Amino acid sequence: MIAGIELGGTKTVIAIGTAEGRVIKECRFPTTHPEETLDFAINWLARRGVPTHIGIAAFGPVGLVPGRANFGKVLATPKPGWAGFSLTNKFAAAFPNARLALDTDVNAAALAEAQIGAAAGLDDVAYITIGTGIGGGILTGGRLVHGAIHPEFGHLKVPRMPGDEYPGICPFHRDCLEGLASGPAIHARWGTPSHEIPSGHPAWETEAWYLAHGILSLLAIVSPSRVIVGGGVSQADGLHQLISRKLEEIAAGYFPPAAEAGYVVPPALGQDAGICGALLISGMQSFCERLTNENAGEW
Amino acid sequence: MIAGIELGGTKTVIAIGTAEGRVIKECRFPTTHPEETLDFAINWLARRGVPTHIGIAAFGPVGLVPGRANFGKVLATPKPGWAGFSLTNKFAAAFPNARLALDTDVNAAALAEAQIGAAAGLDDVAYITIGTGIGGGILTGGRLVHGAIHPEFGHLKVPRMPGDEYPGICPFHRDCLEGLASGPAIHARWGTPSHEIPSGHPAWETEAWYLAHGILSLLAIVSPSRVIVGGGVSQADGLHQLISRKLEEIAAGYFPPAAEAGYVVPPALGQDAGICGALLISGMQSFCERLTNENAGEW
Repeated sequence: MIAGIELGGTKTVIAIGTAEGRVIKECRFPTTHPEETLDFAINWLARRGVPTHIGIAAFGPVGLVPGRANFGKVLATPKPGWAGFSLTNKFAAAFPNARLALDTDVNAAALAEAQIGAAAGLDDVAYITIGTGIGGGILTGGRLVHGAIHPEFGHLKVPRMPGDEYPGICPFHRDCLEGLASGPAIHARWGTPSHEIPSGHPAWETEAWYLAHGILSLLAIVSPSRVIVGGGVSQADGLHQLISRKLEEIAAGYFPPAAEAGYVVPPALGQDAGICGALLISGMQSFCERLTNENAGEW
Repeated sequence: MIAGIELGGTKTVIAIGTAEGRVIKECRFPTTHPEETLDFAINWLARRGVPTHIGIAAFGPVGLVPGRANFGKVLATPKPGWAGFSLTNKFAAAFPNARLALDTDVNAAALAEAQIGAAAGLDDVAYITIGTGIGGGILTGGRLVHGAIHPEFGHLKVPRMPGDEYPGICPFHRDCLEGLASGPAIHARWGTPSHEIPSGHPAWETEAWYLAHGILSLLAIVSPSRVIVGGGVSQADGLHQLISRKLEEIAAGYFPPAAEAGYVVPPALGQDAGICGALLISGMQSFCERLTNENAGEW
């Protein structure tokens, strides 16, 4: 039995499905305290069988490097009770013969969109999500980018839109991309939640300016063939087209897209990208083997 | 016999050496017309033996995807005679049993610094070069990033230094990173070639501002553990320290570097990174195999 779990900041999804990312049965429930959340997921699974593979997609940051002391643990997070909590220990205790694989929720979503979603069959793909924060997951040459710590796409800096003097809301950087273009930044800047701002409002030109500049950095650094823009804010009418137009303008003939549709597309899996990705991760042999070999003793 | 060739815009290096990147014998000569340049290199090699492996590190852009029509060819370049020229055909004809591997000069340099240079033993490494242009090579999880087209690190956009209104010199983008911080941009902005500008001159604070912002985008997108800053401009006294300081300031506690020395270091291989990288590329099995299997018929 193949299982996946998507641990989000507010909700968790536990599922059984296929290693190809298809959900057979799933259950969504609120993320509460870590013990309670994982117990619920484990009991739900145990009533359905014994998993041989479990893919865990977790809200970041998470220790992803096997062999390091923080492997499998939730790192610094404001979410009460979660910092330092091991996501792998409880699963390993409940299902000692299951192979566990772990990645961030945004990497799981990127993998799912790249394998069975809006970028199916492409090896070089970026997925960004614009919501409470701004995050990104990248595949290059068919492999997920993990990096030395972990990417934090939201915290790069982009040029100011001419005339824009809004200071930005990131507590660390003020006017990084997340500080200027996340959902809460839009709300704070215009005094209205993003989902209440009509299309045609100047908020969306501003939003497209900043996102297009962030995406230009993606093109310059990892050269994806497609950039999937998801998350709550991305559901605004026409936003993908606005970003595409601005991106084409600032790229000025550089980075010609392979597809006529351009780089920027909406997700195909919507809400399901994370849980589909968790199932896909469960089948990633190389990562599973690394876990099993290097960390068996620590579980 | 293992051979490597580094084709630069002005000079070419041909060498025999080891698959571990050690040069045994090398010859440097000016890059002229493509036929002449490759003939010289092939004759130099043929006098020394028959290579079993040849690693080619070429000034970009180059078609790197086996199976595409432009594979092995120099793409759009202002250098007379080179656009569309196949770098692999002549080597394949001269040494039909040799396994050929090809990458960009900047990727070769990144690989060399990551394996035997300033980032030896690290899996997540970025190498940027600041000279006539600005380019970058990236390893993530020990693998070179190629992307769908090819990365063009120099052409991302960064915020303006407050008060700086210099328009920039990139013919495509004006004020992309390359347009504001390459050697010719420094020369044009200050009226003095960069190697004649003394340390302490405000040119270097400006340079550090722009490079630090470019490097912040690298940290946010691929999370390298080290960023090697090379190229002619990087030899200015104290520039690495200025960049480090600015980077620490703008990262504001994000992206804590693993090493006490911080992210930004000078190259260890200097002028030799490209040719050492060409030798290392020759030993990259997976890439060689892809070439041999997929492109045998085209050579």
